[in-house]
Amino acid sequence: MSWEENVRTVTPYTAGEQPKDPGIIKLNTNECPYPPTPKIQEALKELEDTTDRLRLYPDMNATRLVNALADIYGVDPAQIYVGVGSDDVLSMSFLTFFTSGKRILFPDITYSFYDVWAELYRIPYTMVPLRDDFSIDPENYIPDSASYAGKNENIGGLIFPNPNAPTGVALPLADIERIVKANPDIPVIVDEAYVDFGSESARTLLPKYENLLIIQTFSKSRALAGLRIGFAIGSKKMISYLNDVKFSFNSYTMNLPAIVMAEAAVKDDAYFHSLTDRIIETREAFKKDLSALGFTYPDSMTNFVFASHPKVHAKELFAELRAKGILVRYFDKPRINEYLRITVGTREQMQKVVSALREILTEHHAL
Amino acid sequence: MSWEENVRTVTPYTAGEQPKDPGIIKLNTNECPYPPTPKIQEALKELEDTTDRLRLYPDMNATRLVNALADIYGVDPAQIYVGVGSDDVLSMSFLTFFTSGKRILFPDITYSFYDVWAELYRIPYTMVPLRDDFSIDPENYIPDSASYAGKNENIGGLIFPNPNAPTGVALPLADIERIVKANPDIPVIVDEAYVDFGSESARTLLPKYENLLIIQTFSKSRALAGLRIGFAIGSKKMISYLNDVKFSFNSYTMNLPAIVMAEAAVKDDAYFHSLTDRIIETREAFKKDLSALGFTYPDSMTNFVFASHPKVHAKELFAELRAKGILVRYFDKPRINEYLRITVGTREQMQKVVSALREILTEHHAL
Repeated sequence: MSWEENVRTVTPYTAGEQPKDPGIIKLNTNECPYPPTPKIQEALKELEDTTDRLRLYPDMNATRLVNALADIYGVDPAQIYVGVGSDDVLSMSFLTFFTSGKRILFPDITYSFYDVWAELYRIPYTMVPLRDDFSIDPENYIPDSASYAGKNENIGGLIFPNPNAPTGVALPLADIERIVKANPDIPVIVDEAYVDFGSESARTLLPKYENLLIIQTFSKSRALAGLRIGFAIGSKKMISYLNDVKFSFNSYTMNLPAIVMAEAAVKDDAYFHSLTDRIIETREAFKKDLSALGFTYPDSMTNFVFASHPKVHAKELFAELRAKGILVRYFDKPRINEYLRITVGTREQMQKVVSALREILTEHHAL
Repeated sequence: MSWEENVRTVTPYTAGEQPKDPGIIKLNTNECPYPPTPKIQEALKELEDTTDRLRLYPDMNATRLVNALADIYGVDPAQIYVGVGSDDVLSMSFLTFFTSGKRILFPDITYSFYDVWAELYRIPYTMVPLRDDFSIDPENYIPDSASYAGKNENIGGLIFPNPNAPTGVALPLADIERIVKANPDIPVIVDEAYVDFGSESARTLLPKYENLLIIQTFSKSRALAGLRIGFAIGSKKMISYLNDVKFSFNSYTMNLPAIVMAEAAVKDDAYFHSLTDRIIETREAFKKDLSALGFTYPDSMTNFVFASHPKVHAKELFAELRAKGILVRYFDKPRINEYLRITVGTREQMQKVVSALREILTEHHAL
């Protein structure tokens, strides 16, 4: 026998590449192309003036940040949970809500961390195929529907992103509500990492459904991926269960710099909206340019576009863009291996992408 | 049926109180009484000059910090794992190394998070009684010893702090080695949160034992509890297993400010030693003062003293110190409910504690 027999072996999630070359146009991990709010400087000033506080444990409830979020979203602070990026919040949610031994459902094409968490926590799961147009079929998640994906199974929970990733497709709020309403006996988690780019949040459903949890992040629309902040909004009961597990895992997850800087960012709501407005505008212009080049794509409501060209394979496009100093994301997986996921950067960056794609397609006689 | 039936219910860890009143002498959570290295200011300056980087994901390998630690401890960077405080590192280690279904062993009086993690991950465990003098009996952890605590059980791992908490008692390195040597087939974790205050680290054993993992923290001896940094040192194999689970949990746990500030702290080794030297000196003086007041205590090798008075109950002393603005830690638990755990603060703070204790004991006619 060896000590290694006691080890939990897993296949970890593969995150997008983080290139070291600063000259690269980095459009592969859906970061914001603009800097975070200038109020961050004030937060850093506060930290500079009070470095002595770093010797003390931070506020384990991250009260300043939780209160700022509660204010912005008009909910009770007891309805907010914060974590180390939305991955931390999602991971804790899987551990809290999905480990009853029952099977969970999520889309076959979706955030590729879901099956990693399910494997980590040994949660049985069924991946429910998206429609051919990459939209979620709400009927698949409705127990008395003929096309329910959990038929003859004991389903313990649902999770899906809205808008979905890497497709960018959003489900209308009415469909989300039908799903939540039809599943009052299990936790339903809506991962809204990309919701700030033009789709409808399910936040408005919270007063009606105690079993609904919404998860968001500062990494995309708030330009703070480097700070690692995610949060959940839900019923007081759901948040309280989540906190119990969190406080059984690590009492102090949010460090002092993150709390102070994230609070500053939340309070600058005008800057936040200026960021998302600019990105939406650039995305819509980029979509038109892509169409002109012959690309097709599901209608993205996120800060990326999931695009395919009828004449040149995505894998080739990926490599040729890379050679031109433009890094996008390519998933070598069934059903989506003919698509590129291209983050929406600045207007200038997207013009360079369009020029590069035009050159590549011309070389391939595909224009 | 209700959605709540799917929820993982746990009894969370109770951390020490974090009082809001800045006038309180806070000696209840073993923080450092001195500020962190002034080099932190330079790190903040670097952050100020590069806030644009915050829009990007941080380095998921925290390379700058890992390399700085590898340098200081003379190991390969592949032997270092960093996490969000040593609680995060411990929690991940329980999940990685202890969930084979086999029982683990740890002391009955120890860091009170161990049984919380065991419960969270549904790991069976046996708590092994300390000797009456609060020392660990190494024989209890040695399979062919007559007093082995795992007899007739299938033991899957060992963990203990050295020095132990809240007792402060250190096990000599030779005893640690006997335990590790006798258990080659299971992971052995030594939690060295308090090792920098005068006891011997088991780091020197690492080249010989592939199944040994050592966990340390920046929260005590580096005066950076507010930054949430812990780390493990072990064989490349152990660190690689730990990373696989970590990357299945959350790819990006260390935020940019933490990486930059923690690296600055590690590099200021002279300041670090000046902190621990001052605390050791104060602790030794405090021990003498406690003896003079009639207290007994196991010989602490940490930044706290675990003390009991023969005439006045610890619970009363706790409350009366609290009334005088001095907050220490009291555990209302079997075997240790006659002890106070008093963090070693500044020389001035400890003189105030001694004066307060003298007053209280005098009022109780116990001097």
